[in-house]
Amino acid sequence: MNDQDYMKLALQLASHTKGQTSPNPMVGSVVVKDGSIVGMGAHLRAGEGHAEVEALKMAGEQAKGATIYVTLEPCSHFGKTPPCANLIIERELARVVVATVDPNPEVAGRGIKRLRDAGLKVDVGICEQEAIELNRMFFHFIQTKRPFVTMKTATTLDGKTATVTGESKWITEEAAREDVHRDRHVHDAILVGIGTVLADDPALTTRLPLGGRNPIRIVLDRHLRLPLTAQMVTDKAAPTWVFTTLESSNEKQKELEQVGITVIRLQAYSIESILIELGQRRVMSLYVEGGQEVNGSFLKEGAVNQVITYIAPKMVGGKLAATAVGGEGIEDMSEAVQFDIVDVSRVGRDLKITSIVKEG
Amino acid sequence: MNDQDYMKLALQLASHTKGQTSPNPMVGSVVVKDGSIVGMGAHLRAGEGHAEVEALKMAGEQAKGATIYVTLEPCSHFGKTPPCANLIIERELARVVVATVDPNPEVAGRGIKRLRDAGLKVDVGICEQEAIELNRMFFHFIQTKRPFVTMKTATTLDGKTATVTGESKWITEEAAREDVHRDRHVHDAILVGIGTVLADDPALTTRLPLGGRNPIRIVLDRHLRLPLTAQMVTDKAAPTWVFTTLESSNEKQKELEQVGITVIRLQAYSIESILIELGQRRVMSLYVEGGQEVNGSFLKEGAVNQVITYIAPKMVGGKLAATAVGGEGIEDMSEAVQFDIVDVSRVGRDLKITSIVKEG
Repeated sequence: MNDQDYMKLALQLASHTKGQTSPNPMVGSVVVKDGSIVGMGAHLRAGEGHAEVEALKMAGEQAKGATIYVTLEPCSHFGKTPPCANLIIERELARVVVATVDPNPEVAGRGIKRLRDAGLKVDVGICEQEAIELNRMFFHFIQTKRPFVTMKTATTLDGKTATVTGESKWITEEAAREDVHRDRHVHDAILVGIGTVLADDPALTTRLPLGGRNPIRIVLDRHLRLPLTAQMVTDKAAPTWVFTTLESSNEKQKELEQVGITVIRLQAYSIESILIELGQRRVMSLYVEGGQEVNGSFLKEGAVNQVITYIAPKMVGGKLAATAVGGEGIEDMSEAVQFDIVDVSRVGRDLKITSIVKEG
Repeated sequence: MNDQDYMKLALQLASHTKGQTSPNPMVGSVVVKDGSIVGMGAHLRAGEGHAEVEALKMAGEQAKGATIYVTLEPCSHFGKTPPCANLIIERELARVVVATVDPNPEVAGRGIKRLRDAGLKVDVGICEQEAIELNRMFFHFIQTKRPFVTMKTATTLDGKTATVTGESKWITEEAAREDVHRDRHVHDAILVGIGTVLADDPALTTRLPLGGRNPIRIVLDRHLRLPLTAQMVTDKAAPTWVFTTLESSNEKQKELEQVGITVIRLQAYSIESILIELGQRRVMSLYVEGGQEVNGSFLKEGAVNQVITYIAPKMVGGKLAATAVGGEGIEDMSEAVQFDIVDVSRVGRDLKITSIVKEG
């Protein structure tokens, strides 16, 4: 076992907490003494112990003189818990191995500095890429103050979301539809257009065999047409937030608010304003399950960070059949929004392609 | 090494001849004596020796009492060469291992019967699935008398073949475009609509670093609008066949024929008639590089056996942007043409998905 091996174990511990740590990042930690693992831990949930705290708790007396591996720079500030850097110093560890610096401006290198100032040996950058990828959404939010946006599409092999008559049930099979619920679970909020609500009356909850976290449900609803009878209004399964303009009905707003719906009026009704507003409300990740108009707006505004494309091995053809991303579109091929495919996997008989927007 | 291992070697030998054996299938053979390989061979080209002949030539005197592995049932009829079953009997082999029975009605089990009648031990069905897949196109042609149809599409992640302004250069990158040339090489003919010819004036030749076979170029041209100045008329790089109706101009036909173009008039101008006609002309495999209208017609007629979908990780959006398969389309999602994804691979930054139509 070398540094990489121990850090990979720490990353693995962290990755199991997917979907439960927001607004905190996923972090894992391993304590090693004389070539043996004496402590392991992960941050499980906001408000509970950081990964280092858990790992050091397990290590007990063994921590003295040991090496601690942690996937993210130990914190140096007093938040809900005292700073981990202080704890590591108090427990007299000899060496700290960090995968990546914390992009949070409240930490950003200060944790590492404090450890070094106290005489500990600190190595940074072991498995850095994996650590950054693990918390891609968190890092994006910390750096931009806006949610990381995942656009989900599901089409036939020939790129259609419905037949020429508008029939769209079902494109993908059961396994892919369940996979969507796993992805809802790891996002803070899920967004649709009012058109989708009026057409399908979706619940937009996370339905998994062992349960799951329900994201906040967000509806783009310029004219405040959301029916009081819609599932996402009546089911109380998760908060529902509606974005609308200054012009829409005050009376309808009151009716919606009376049944617990949050109505947010925007002076400038745009994707950008919505993302800024969501960022201020600590929504770190947004799963867009829009129809082609909503998707087209997000694309055109350059607001897509990740695309998850499900492809069903079937074809329906049709010049007039709907596709996943509509709107005005981008005119020049050279100005197409560029992505990198980071993962391709089979989900049942369907295919899932994950692509991350190419930076710069 | 067991039967499977030797048969896999024979399959590998066969697979290297991709694109050069038509109208014959790809076949490989290995001769094994006392646990050692004493002969290997493949059928290289129509008119040259069958795989068994080549492998037995290498084996020489060692063939007596040996086992021969062959990926396709040895032939029993006199074609351009004498029957391989006879040769195996004459050379006094002890055992024959066959991957799959020959679907060719002139062989179809008779080769195996002759071998067994002569007292040889014959085992059939080792690596059968791989052997059938290897010669998928050939088997389809033998069984249906029509070419195996591969539809090739290249789209953005959001299923577009062009931006809203019609700009389509380029969707995929260089590596994927070179890959298309490898696939042209393994098809007998390539088909486009006259719209593509008028818009792009393509050569439709196989351009690979070490050369390649040029498929016959087929144009669907109802009104015989193919210009005498088109590249595929003037370059003489490969035969060009034009399908048209009984109504189009006789004079234009003569002009095209004078410069070496084959004009085929159809009483019933349909995809079905075209495939029947191509089958009669021994075109075993057809690579359709159509625009959305041509692709839509092939899909609607249920004439697609395989789809090769290149996906470029970019998005352009646009409700009115063109997609790969147009036409009227299929109305009911339940009647979508169903495929199975058989291969997914990265080609440079792009993705290549190969799907085979689901039978039955």
